[in-house]
Amino acid sequence: MSVSPVTFADIRQAATIIAPMVHRTPVLHSSRMNARSGATLHFKCENLQHTGSFKLRGASHALCQLKAAGLAGPVATHSSGNHGAALAEAARLLGLPAHIVVPDGAVATKLAAIEAYGGIIHRCDASQAAREAGLAELIDRLGAHPVPPYDDPRIIAGQGTAALELIDEVPELEVLLAPVGGGGLLAGTALVAREHGITAVGAEPAQADDCWRSLDAGARVSDHQPDTIADGLRAHVGTLNFQILEQQRVEIIRVSEAEIIAAMREFWHSCKLIIEPSSAVAIAAVLKQSERFAGKQVGIILSGGNVDLDQLPW
Amino acid sequence: MSVSPVTFADIRQAATIIAPMVHRTPVLHSSRMNARSGATLHFKCENLQHTGSFKLRGASHALCQLKAAGLAGPVATHSSGNHGAALAEAARLLGLPAHIVVPDGAVATKLAAIEAYGGIIHRCDASQAAREAGLAELIDRLGAHPVPPYDDPRIIAGQGTAALELIDEVPELEVLLAPVGGGGLLAGTALVAREHGITAVGAEPAQADDCWRSLDAGARVSDHQPDTIADGLRAHVGTLNFQILEQQRVEIIRVSEAEIIAAMREFWHSCKLIIEPSSAVAIAAVLKQSERFAGKQVGIILSGGNVDLDQLPW
Repeated sequence: MSVSPVTFADIRQAATIIAPMVHRTPVLHSSRMNARSGATLHFKCENLQHTGSFKLRGASHALCQLKAAGLAGPVATHSSGNHGAALAEAARLLGLPAHIVVPDGAVATKLAAIEAYGGIIHRCDASQAAREAGLAELIDRLGAHPVPPYDDPRIIAGQGTAALELIDEVPELEVLLAPVGGGGLLAGTALVAREHGITAVGAEPAQADDCWRSLDAGARVSDHQPDTIADGLRAHVGTLNFQILEQQRVEIIRVSEAEIIAAMREFWHSCKLIIEPSSAVAIAAVLKQSERFAGKQVGIILSGGNVDLDQLPW
Repeated sequence: MSVSPVTFADIRQAATIIAPMVHRTPVLHSSRMNARSGATLHFKCENLQHTGSFKLRGASHALCQLKAAGLAGPVATHSSGNHGAALAEAARLLGLPAHIVVPDGAVATKLAAIEAYGGIIHRCDASQAAREAGLAELIDRLGAHPVPPYDDPRIIAGQGTAALELIDEVPELEVLLAPVGGGGLLAGTALVAREHGITAVGAEPAQADDCWRSLDAGARVSDHQPDTIADGLRAHVGTLNFQILEQQRVEIIRVSEAEIIAAMREFWHSCKLIIEPSSAVAIAAVLKQSERFAGKQVGIILSGGNVDLDQLPW
């Protein structure tokens, strides 16, 4: 078994580095959702994070490390929205220009947020290949330094800090769920969970289940055609992310589009908190396998809250 | 000047009595809303209160007092929704049956909540006269004990406990805003604010401005034809409520329907918290008179979060 390229110590250090740039988000509870699930649910509210998602953690960590190493030029990434907004804001805070490649189909309010934080947007087709080509062009033409959305040890260490805060606040936690797209949040979460003897579980849209299929096959699948409302989870799981998830033997629960929408609506209605579909994927997973989680202390990382209020799915 | 029928001591005592039945709701902050308003805003999140609004405070207090005095029979009220749900839930917790007169036009999810908490619904026309006739009929026919939504010293004392918690948590507060419909929340808030040397300000829809007009005229106006999206603020200000607001020289800021909807949408978008239109009235008031509140420590009581997600106003 190879040594993990990201350690628990890296995540602890990341927490110290990014503390001035991120909120310590609240952990909220709902008696209604507890009654519905049969478990005691602890919601880590990254939807209330600055920029509206956990992505600010990884982006801040990567840029702080790069700036400490002397970087002064522009940074760039490809993102369906949240990582782009987070990178734009982290770059703004640190005085660096940021260029963001955004695939077609991204949520309008996420695009607006990237611009509001001063990010420069470059549109491309929705495919993974088009995203990567767009980014390569920016690196080539502008000399921009790429900051990947998830397949990067600094990003994974930054994203793990959400789980660190949650476990610090709820030491009785037994299971910890996070959604998986590229796998930055889930890989960081799994490393923190392992250190504390807690089971980490991923939640993935069945219509974008490349991570589940990759773990099942023992190798990253090459065919990936996501078709899900969870716009934050359409990316292909990263190489490093896959390696960590496989090492940590993380299990994935898959949920349907209808289950995602129902969980999102129920959570809005019961908890009065706006979460985006990607966050609802983790709630849907707990409701789907409620017998498995019944009676347990379950942490759920609500990854973000950036929703287009004119395009609600009900 | 007459002695107030509700004192600060009553509100302190109410807080102790209802503590086992209500949440101590969080006080949240938003750098975006601070930047927008120029003030430091402290949001007291009664939208996260059990039953989704502050109304559980007054209803719990009234029923605890009644039960201590020997009441065992049914209780009844008229309500556009939140007081009805709160009374139903408080009655359920205390083992009493609850009958709720609900005017036409009430939000569907509020009706569903009343039923979910075991309340028995009786529909009536939307007018104040029809509400009162419906309640009188229940008292007569069932021997139900009426629990008014706002025009009652026990209710006012209960509603004041939200402001008590907010000031306890934010002692540097300088101004405290609450929306006004029947005036239970605002009267209780004004009594707490006075005790702490803080200015209380009411916020009212211009299209349901009977409280503003009553204070302006020095007597409760008799014509009241509310036409506002803020369904929680359509009631006529109560006699006792008016008396307290006049004694405390509480000023009212009026806002348009467009200002209410814009504030609600902006708050949902920025803060990821679901508030109902009545709560947005208080935010709209701060945004409308931002020069007045600039640089100040401003408390805003977000009264509730019960919204029909199928009928959003944008």
